[in-house]
Amino acid sequence: MSTLKTGFVSFFITAMTLSASAQKTTPIYLDVTQPIEERVENALSLMTTEEKVALCHAQSKFSSKGAARLGIPEVWTSDGPHGIREEVYWDEWSGAQWTNDSCTAFPALTCLAATFNPELSLLYGKSIGEEARYRNKTMLLGPGVNIYRTPLNGRNFEYMGEDPYLASCMVVPYVQGVQANGVAACVKHFALNNQEKWRGHINVNVSDRALYEIYLPAFKAAVQEGQAWSIMGSYNQFRGEHCCHNDLLLNKILKKDWEFDGLVISDWGGVHNTDQAVNNGLDIEMGTYTNGLTTSGHFPYSDYYLADPFLKGIKDGKYEMAVLDDKARRILRLIFRTTMSANRPFGRFVSPEHSEAARKIACEGIVLLKNNEEFFPIPVGKYKKIAVIGENASRSMVIGGGSSSLKVAYEVSPLQGLKDKYGDKHITYSLGYASGPSLYGREEPSKLDADSLMAAAIEVAKDADIVLYIGGLNKNHFQDCEGGDRKFLDLPFGQDKLIDELLKVNKNTAVVLLSGNAVAMPWVDKVPAIMQGWYLGAEAGNALADVISGDVNPSGKLPFSFPKKLEDNGAHFFGELSYPGDSIDQYYKEDILVGYRWFDTKKIEPLFPFGYGLSYTSFTWSEPEVDRNEVKADGTLKVWFTLTNTGKIDGAETAQFYVSKPKSEVARAAKELKAFKKVFLKAGESRLVTLEVPVSSFAYYNESKSSWIVEPGNYTFLLGNSSRDIKGKLTVNVE
Amino acid sequence: MSTLKTGFVSFFITAMTLSASAQKTTPIYLDVTQPIEERVENALSLMTTEEKVALCHAQSKFSSKGAARLGIPEVWTSDGPHGIREEVYWDEWSGAQWTNDSCTAFPALTCLAATFNPELSLLYGKSIGEEARYRNKTMLLGPGVNIYRTPLNGRNFEYMGEDPYLASCMVVPYVQGVQANGVAACVKHFALNNQEKWRGHINVNVSDRALYEIYLPAFKAAVQEGQAWSIMGSYNQFRGEHCCHNDLLLNKILKKDWEFDGLVISDWGGVHNTDQAVNNGLDIEMGTYTNGLTTSGHFPYSDYYLADPFLKGIKDGKYEMAVLDDKARRILRLIFRTTMSANRPFGRFVSPEHSEAARKIACEGIVLLKNNEEFFPIPVGKYKKIAVIGENASRSMVIGGGSSSLKVAYEVSPLQGLKDKYGDKHITYSLGYASGPSLYGREEPSKLDADSLMAAAIEVAKDADIVLYIGGLNKNHFQDCEGGDRKFLDLPFGQDKLIDELLKVNKNTAVVLLSGNAVAMPWVDKVPAIMQGWYLGAEAGNALADVISGDVNPSGKLPFSFPKKLEDNGAHFFGELSYPGDSIDQYYKEDILVGYRWFDTKKIEPLFPFGYGLSYTSFTWSEPEVDRNEVKADGTLKVWFTLTNTGKIDGAETAQFYVSKPKSEVARAAKELKAFKKVFLKAGESRLVTLEVPVSSFAYYNESKSSWIVEPGNYTFLLGNSSRDIKGKLTVNVE
Repeated sequence: MSTLKTGFVSFFITAMTLSASAQKTTPIYLDVTQPIEERVENALSLMTTEEKVALCHAQSKFSSKGAARLGIPEVWTSDGPHGIREEVYWDEWSGAQWTNDSCTAFPALTCLAATFNPELSLLYGKSIGEEARYRNKTMLLGPGVNIYRTPLNGRNFEYMGEDPYLASCMVVPYVQGVQANGVAACVKHFALNNQEKWRGHINVNVSDRALYEIYLPAFKAAVQEGQAWSIMGSYNQFRGEHCCHNDLLLNKILKKDWEFDGLVISDWGGVHNTDQAVNNGLDIEMGTYTNGLTTSGHFPYSDYYLADPFLKGIKDGKYEMAVLDDKARRILRLIFRTTMSANRPFGRFVSPEHSEAARKIACEGIVLLKNNEEFFPIPVGKYKKIAVIGENASRSMVIGGGSSSLKVAYEVSPLQGLKDKYGDKHITYSLGYASGPSLYGREEPSKLDADSLMAAAIEVAKDADIVLYIGGLNKNHFQDCEGGDRKFLDLPFGQDKLIDELLKVNKNTAVVLLSGNAVAMPWVDKVPAIMQGWYLGAEAGNALADVISGDVNPSGKLPFSFPKKLEDNGAHFFGELSYPGDSIDQYYKEDILVGYRWFDTKKIEPLFPFGYGLSYTSFTWSEPEVDRNEVKADGTLKVWFTLTNTGKIDGAETAQFYVSKPKSEVARAAKELKAFKKVFLKAGESRLVTLEVPVSSFAYYNESKSSWIVEPGNYTFLLGNSSRDIKGKLTVNVE
Repeated sequence: MSTLKTGFVSFFITAMTLSASAQKTTPIYLDVTQPIEERVENALSLMTTEEKVALCHAQSKFSSKGAARLGIPEVWTSDGPHGIREEVYWDEWSGAQWTNDSCTAFPALTCLAATFNPELSLLYGKSIGEEARYRNKTMLLGPGVNIYRTPLNGRNFEYMGEDPYLASCMVVPYVQGVQANGVAACVKHFALNNQEKWRGHINVNVSDRALYEIYLPAFKAAVQEGQAWSIMGSYNQFRGEHCCHNDLLLNKILKKDWEFDGLVISDWGGVHNTDQAVNNGLDIEMGTYTNGLTTSGHFPYSDYYLADPFLKGIKDGKYEMAVLDDKARRILRLIFRTTMSANRPFGRFVSPEHSEAARKIACEGIVLLKNNEEFFPIPVGKYKKIAVIGENASRSMVIGGGSSSLKVAYEVSPLQGLKDKYGDKHITYSLGYASGPSLYGREEPSKLDADSLMAAAIEVAKDADIVLYIGGLNKNHFQDCEGGDRKFLDLPFGQDKLIDELLKVNKNTAVVLLSGNAVAMPWVDKVPAIMQGWYLGAEAGNALADVISGDVNPSGKLPFSFPKKLEDNGAHFFGELSYPGDSIDQYYKEDILVGYRWFDTKKIEPLFPFGYGLSYTSFTWSEPEVDRNEVKADGTLKVWFTLTNTGKIDGAETAQFYVSKPKSEVARAAKELKAFKKVFLKAGESRLVTLEVPVSSFAYYNESKSSWIVEPGNYTFLLGNSSRDIKGKLTVNVE
């Protein structure tokens, strides 16, 4: 019945397909087979001044314009770095109530750093990049690599610890993994945004040496090794200029010295001045609070510093067209690298593989700090009655904390993970304390609440075979949260007292801390076991239960030092002008001696040192050997030793090579991490572990010469399983 | 200064890139180089029952799920067919107040049909497809090809006229143009949705012959020639079943006989029954009003007929898994053809090329109906004082009308276009009448308003050299608007009286009508000139000014007949049971005699006939010739004649070949359009015009045999410039 009509129209079509085509030939900029630089130049040549300026500022809370007329897509950013933020209304911070945007929550970056495993960083980047890609994001606002300078910084949980080398090694694969999806990583916050207090204006004064040796290397690695396509300016000032338009940081260091060809985006609301925004290296301005709402309820984006004022300045001849072209080029380059790239993969969202990745990273990041009389692991069936105490066992740890807050597909709480592992009937839970809702505001529960919650917990603990106390910090304001710093090193919400009281009724009380920061532990000698969890993401409970039960042997290492008291930390030793500053300025008086560099140089005993973490198995270390004792400044050393798993279960140890320069023309840290390798060994297995270390990494930054100098002479190599537990030494002479 | 650190991380990365990859190898379904059918089968094999069911219903107002876990994108639809609708809130009809979604408004499809130029249809499809693609839409909800049965149908402006052959020729390139962008066209509304009154339930009773010969051919052409990837079920019932789950239409005709391999999507809220939705050929259910809101303010999409009830039925064994697989396959196929296709272009949005396309289509679609004493064209400078009267000169014609309402980047009103063409000082404007805001509700202005507006207009007209009256219908409810039909054929808002009054004070009053429907013209003999515009989109004013001024020579032809009175129309001749029905049923009693088929067979003089339209130049036609007078039923005839532009300006004429079967075994229409060609000729130019006509197109649908029959015997060929102005005849014998 289908003879009629079939074929009767086709003769019209063939002849006209070419002639009537709306887009007759593919211009260079649309041809994905052309080199990106040629596409950029072609697109740029077709754009008006207005269109170029329109690229340089937000059009909504999280997006900026492309060139619609030319078919060049918009740039859509998403907060990271632990998951893809929910969709928000066009010009509001609040969620748009979509139902397709509940993401996978990955562990916080402190946890990733604690794995000391760059392969997991690649897995993390690939996985979160896939989620960003599926959600059609151009740019993931992460990872963060600000150096952990003080345990009070409310945003440390989003960063990768206190050591520039560790952060560098971990940031590079994350960036590569994200970008393999055709999504730009945006490394943040460049630079010196090491505290949240007064972050919007505090002027950081720091030596060139500390800048280059401590605070910049992870950014440089992200740019040069990771080939990051974007970077975010920070809120604070540096030497009198806001970092979102800081000539030294953006023009001289990032774009000139490091030859960064990506784009600089401002932190949201981080721009303050058109002249500087135009000339000092910023490319896209986001989130500026303008003078008022339009009648339609929108902020007038045309008021932005890089909007109409920029356009007017170009037209008046005040600003160079070349400056605008440079910004437009960088933005176009990013668009061509991402949305308009050839063979961009499709991503995926909330896949089992992402859950697996989150669980694996969480498991490898958990750090066993103390384990008297093999308290851990706790095999299934060993105890009938396990008391779980503490709010963090049941509290969501993916909500809150600021811009990294997530709307998630699911989150397995520690309590749920333990119930699933040990069986409901073996677990009794009591809150113990309550911190209030996960919102800005209330910090402490009322006294009455605290007393009755504690009493109830003690009753539960009394009865149990063992107690797992699961506390720490959370993501409320003034805890681990953007926009404010912690006010003290102690555990909040009366936890120290609660732990003391629990110990009085049950000596078998182990402490599991979930936090993104170090805390004081006045009860450290009284408890048999301590485990440092982090914000572990969707699989938190499963990962904790895996490690607690012994299904996974812990292998995490601390990415920052835990001080016994706040004043032991280098940033706090010098008083308020060093941290938090006088509200106008601050001075990084500890200079290069950040983290273990301070503790070890000043011979201050930390509570737990950098690089530290126990295992359920034991390892022996042979003396290290080196391929030569004399080496040139541009050479590479090969160092090896034999590591043996002497215990009865499989496990991993992280070998850490530190270098020390006993006699130097400048002040040196007692030791600096220069290489590490995480080694997985079966029970009883031995393996030769080899590391290569470029001698160039021994350099210090010479301020008078503005360059890196490898001093000749003797260097001591220290091989350890933490910065404080040195297993062997070597001496090498650099010619 | 960059020796340190460069290179120090890279050795980590190379070795692990493969091993730690989150997605180790590309599965078949993600490999764009694989055949789509293999990708579909591979994806299907990886999906759970729940995931397949989730494909089959909405997740928001305009989207349905993909398979996030597998990286298969969601389906995002956008209302068409004249432009890309603004973004709306997740589960609301109202606009989401984005500022990047003001589109190009293209002319209404009636205008496109009036061009009789399939090349412009391709241009239209390509252009609107580019806009959809830039906005990341998977599917454009258009074009509409419901046959123009009655001038009261509120939605005729979205369709392509009364003739199945014309609509077929015009729909195919539109579909192809859209889909060249990797965006699915969605042909609608399948089928028999020929009125808005009672559209949600009216049960259409129509003969097989009328169904196959009149109402289905454009859909069939879209599917078989245009290879449309999706089709939308209509709201109404046909033979007792709603068309969104109508076994005959969807399973038997569309999917079996026509071998349609795309997907069937419901009109929004067009689904009423799970059993039928499952088994009768629907693939995606959209817009169902469920029983209530959830606490979060959303409709529970899980309540949809093709959601949980479908899943439960599958699990209970009530529905076959094969039925679900068939739906999932079709949806996946569409996703692989669009979002996940190789080399999908990037689209563009609000480009000058799209404005040019809109203007060109508008110019070619405008129909000159009457032109005594060369009233038109009106060269610039000829008159000092031109009075423009009528609301449609200044009213937005892109807003309103229902789902095709647009938020536009700009719209040039007729008044603005005329001012730009003739100069502000030569144009005086008076509203003349007011129809109320462009919202549902008020239909007529108050009497007082009407009187004072008319008085003001008369004052303006009195003074002028000429009057251009610009009126017609608009897109308010009960005018040209979805969800309701017009109530009468007359011009609304007192326009007939206004025109009469204007003529009394100024004989040089021409009427320009903007509408998507025929209207009665009691003043037809009194006015010197009449021009039929349509809803002309963003470039309305420019296009009208182009044609009025003579910069463009009009070449549009009516795609439907204008009756003198409503009862002259076939659908209305038989009374209310024929139109609009008794609220339950209606009977298409005119059968195949729709449009000119009715007028010509019944020898009723139309006001203006189908295919009619004047030019500023004149043409002569030679006698047509044919390559043979005897032809087989499966043969093709070649027909030719010479067309000469005998006037002084360039212009276009559309040659129309109709066929007539004087002696037939069944009732036949007096003539049926079987071929047309629009020919552009320079002043004085002659050209041999050749058309090929397959004899199979002479077939009628034999109801007892359920097949197409080409009767042997004599056929008369009629060559004309409208259905009523026949320039030459031929007789051909089919063996």
